[in-house]
Amino acid sequence: MSSGDASPPSEKTRLRRYNWLAKYDRDTINAIIDAGMVCQVAYVMDGMPYVTPTNHWRIDDHVYWHGSSASRMLTTQQKGVPVCFSVTHMDGVVISRAAFNHNVNFRSVMAFGNAEMCDEEHKRFALQTFVDRLAPGLWDHARKPTEQEWKATKVIRLKLDEVSGKVRTGAPIDDEEDYLSDAWAGVIPLKLIQLPPEPDPKLREGIEMPEFAKRFRYGF
Amino acid sequence: MSSGDASPPSEKTRLRRYNWLAKYDRDTINAIIDAGMVCQVAYVMDGMPYVTPTNHWRIDDHVYWHGSSASRMLTTQQKGVPVCFSVTHMDGVVISRAAFNHNVNFRSVMAFGNAEMCDEEHKRFALQTFVDRLAPGLWDHARKPTEQEWKATKVIRLKLDEVSGKVRTGAPIDDEEDYLSDAWAGVIPLKLIQLPPEPDPKLREGIEMPEFAKRFRYGF
Repeated sequence: MSSGDASPPSEKTRLRRYNWLAKYDRDTINAIIDAGMVCQVAYVMDGMPYVTPTNHWRIDDHVYWHGSSASRMLTTQQKGVPVCFSVTHMDGVVISRAAFNHNVNFRSVMAFGNAEMCDEEHKRFALQTFVDRLAPGLWDHARKPTEQEWKATKVIRLKLDEVSGKVRTGAPIDDEEDYLSDAWAGVIPLKLIQLPPEPDPKLREGIEMPEFAKRFRYGF
Repeated sequence: MSSGDASPPSEKTRLRRYNWLAKYDRDTINAIIDAGMVCQVAYVMDGMPYVTPTNHWRIDDHVYWHGSSASRMLTTQQKGVPVCFSVTHMDGVVISRAAFNHNVNFRSVMAFGNAEMCDEEHKRFALQTFVDRLAPGLWDHARKPTEQEWKATKVIRLKLDEVSGKVRTGAPIDDEEDYLSDAWAGVIPLKLIQLPPEPDPKLREGIEMPEFAKRFRYGF
């Protein structure tokens, strides 16, 4: 079994289980990260594991997340502690001819490294980039943050050095002899879709839906 | 601001940020856990944080996950180490009249506790339950595990004692004065849907799609 494209950047990111699903090329990894905006960030506090779902975005070789300046998670992470960043997309349920071979189709990325708090200037740049990637034009459309709101927000980033991807697609893979069985096998694909924008019921009369909302596409 | 229904089971699970989104009632928490089968489990190994996406299912007051007996994650967890279990569903992007108030709609659950490896008997019961919840009838349809396959699989569980949920739904919430602005605001709902089952191209001729596949509904 081949261990995917390119090489693992470190022993820690080398996939041990199902290593034939591994993806180490940066384009594949970036596409998985950019396909959504929900990640999970794990960190250790007082020796205990924590994992927090949060929104992320990527700028070049860094992933970013943000939150309240008073957040316990960010206050811990801003010290530069080790974190484990994870993104997962569930793409389907794979039903095999043998119970042992049922599986799921998915795309995931895992990255290790030390969290880094962004300074004020970079924080403002990064948040504006986040908003404008989410919906091009949105940064100029909505009211920009006050100084107090800027102060209330922290941005943390992680350099994508130790990073690996994992992708499973396609049909079940059964043991040779099971292909002769009468059992059905196949995939039930799953897909995250967006529904039409729902204007805020409190919207003032006469405010039309702007282009950025009409053209909104989830995933960067 | 109210802190949701019921009370937090412990200080660790009391939501500090956005505590008005907290849900501590077990029905809400169970529904969030059962709505999907992808969780993230964080744990500490050699002082470092790890978070692994994996498939989960719930039986009463425990959540379960499984994997290869040789898995580094499960070998660590079977010692009964502390874990942090997290499930997150992304339900929409909330666009507000002010950049500071953009948000997302989501449902999430976080649970803390010590992992517990299931003994052989409970492992077999739990995996059968998993498969039959996924698609009722599937356990009897496909070939059951051989003794070697059983040996190759471990099941870990976590008791849902220290657990909390967090739910955001609905329209943007803006500052009072921003409601007078000309900015558009609203929600772009996101939804995980399933597409029609795709039979394995290697399926033998004459094998019809069984009821469990036709009736498949993602989420337990």
